[in-house]
Amino acid sequence: MKRYMIGIDLGGTKIAAALVDDRGRVYHEMTMLTHAEEGLTPVIDRMEVCLQTLLDQADAPVAGIGIGAAGMVDSVHGIVIQASNLNWQAVPLRQLILDRIGRDWVNRVWVDKDTNAAVLGESLYGAGQGCKHLLYVTVGTGIGGGMMLEGHLYHGATQGASDIGHLVLNKSGQLCGCGKRGCLETLASGPAIVRMTLERIAAGEASLQAKLDPQILTARDVVEAAQLGDELGRSVLAEAGEWLGMGLAYYVEINNPERIIIGGGVAAAGELLLGPVRQAIAKWALPANAKAACVVMAGLGAESGVVGAATLGFSVLSLPPPHA
Amino acid sequence: MKRYMIGIDLGGTKIAAALVDDRGRVYHEMTMLTHAEEGLTPVIDRMEVCLQTLLDQADAPVAGIGIGAAGMVDSVHGIVIQASNLNWQAVPLRQLILDRIGRDWVNRVWVDKDTNAAVLGESLYGAGQGCKHLLYVTVGTGIGGGMMLEGHLYHGATQGASDIGHLVLNKSGQLCGCGKRGCLETLASGPAIVRMTLERIAAGEASLQAKLDPQILTARDVVEAAQLGDELGRSVLAEAGEWLGMGLAYYVEINNPERIIIGGGVAAAGELLLGPVRQAIAKWALPANAKAACVVMAGLGAESGVVGAATLGFSVLSLPPPHA
Repeated sequence: MKRYMIGIDLGGTKIAAALVDDRGRVYHEMTMLTHAEEGLTPVIDRMEVCLQTLLDQADAPVAGIGIGAAGMVDSVHGIVIQASNLNWQAVPLRQLILDRIGRDWVNRVWVDKDTNAAVLGESLYGAGQGCKHLLYVTVGTGIGGGMMLEGHLYHGATQGASDIGHLVLNKSGQLCGCGKRGCLETLASGPAIVRMTLERIAAGEASLQAKLDPQILTARDVVEAAQLGDELGRSVLAEAGEWLGMGLAYYVEINNPERIIIGGGVAAAGELLLGPVRQAIAKWALPANAKAACVVMAGLGAESGVVGAATLGFSVLSLPPPHA
Repeated sequence: MKRYMIGIDLGGTKIAAALVDDRGRVYHEMTMLTHAEEGLTPVIDRMEVCLQTLLDQADAPVAGIGIGAAGMVDSVHGIVIQASNLNWQAVPLRQLILDRIGRDWVNRVWVDKDTNAAVLGESLYGAGQGCKHLLYVTVGTGIGGGMMLEGHLYHGATQGASDIGHLVLNKSGQLCGCGKRGCLETLASGPAIVRMTLERIAAGEASLQAKLDPQILTARDVVEAAQLGDELGRSVLAEAGEWLGMGLAYYVEINNPERIIIGGGVAAAGELLLGPVRQAIAKWALPANAKAACVVMAGLGAESGVVGAATLGFSVLSLPPPHA
């Protein structure tokens, strides 16, 4: 029998919501701007509008609601502990949503960090199908991770696991937003790629692509130029890929995954990024562990956020619970 | 009702075996030299002698046999994939033992790497009691790890997880036995501590302890001198502890453990090592993750090898199976 889950991807810029079936197919979907600067209540209001609209449209039962949020999340209690791009701290998101949609939904609303939603979505419907041990890494404005071990999402002792972006790889490197220096995020994220490109241009390296205008340069520009053959762009992506691979090598030595899935905006670079990532893992990890870890592109595209969020519920309802 | 497990700790130097009850208490125990250079069969012969002797002595049922082996182990099939100090490759240890003691024991003989046995032993009877997310690290001739996540031993996709000793921390560092440079093992193991001490003495640093004789110096000497106040010894242990803490910070960011247990010969240094370890974790990991990870000394002493090995069986027989 057909049934749906509602998936909500809550980001700093927009709220994406969709009715998703248990095969990961997206039916109705809608997007609203987050406007977090207006405060908490308007954001919850907009999430409620999305929920009510999609519930009204559902032609089959809605089993539950999954919410993936950008930030640190206590998935047990459904609390967004910290989300800097929403300016949220200790927001009891699950409770706030239940207050709007009613107690009937208790035990059927799940909140987790967006990268955990993404790894679940990839494992069920994307590039991680058939894998029990996998890491999803998003490379965009920041670098974050979500991991599955033995076929289950892993959160750690205090919900702090898979913090890939803040592995310190270069002790004398750039200051990171977290207060440390040389975190992976300062070496391979979108802003890092822009910074490295501008540094190289300032140092006199020429770019063939007129598009690489220092004033308005984005990581997407660098990726597109590189794909058209720009040597500077390719070289910067290779450097970012090397750093990313070095960070992932630590993950590979510690957790011995079978698949590493790269998503996020910078992943659009494809093999220009993934090739150097694979080489770096082979260089820095033990051969058996490096060989076991297959590095691939994310399989779910623009819909990965809502599909992953929906999967937060399906994974609980469809699969045996962990350690039952 | 009382019941026993036989635990065997198989190392390059000796075979330790004991009758252990399900509260982790050691009854009869025996030790034989391994003499791996005599070949495989004599080692299996000696293990059989231990087993038969202990079985004869048991005044209650023996539920099973756990074997912890130094090296890479395929715990699913009971195969020692590689053990350099035994000069073993792809040795089907469980099958060889079953051939000696009979098919009655099938499904009641467990083989795993010694550090996995150790983390289980610590979790049930030692410094990890009550913890679901813990890492055991042995610091001795080498550096190895064993980890438990969600209350269960974690092996990884291809049994290569928790390879803490080969995290590369200093790209331009010493050549490691694995072929890479600057692995944690080259920076904080017993031989690394000896090397660092000798380098400092050669560079003119004086040691107060006459015991620090360059010709016959051991890590134990350095630890003992440091405990007696030797500044050089203390400084070297602090440096080793800093490197160890830096490696553990990667583990802390990735897996968010609640406890890290330090064992092995060098752990005898106690706070002289653990203090710098804690400081380095606090320096290199995010505050919430660093705070969650309590660093402690191993709780099981000289008997940890046999108790841990015995626990390999008790953990299967007494606890719910993982993901049942």
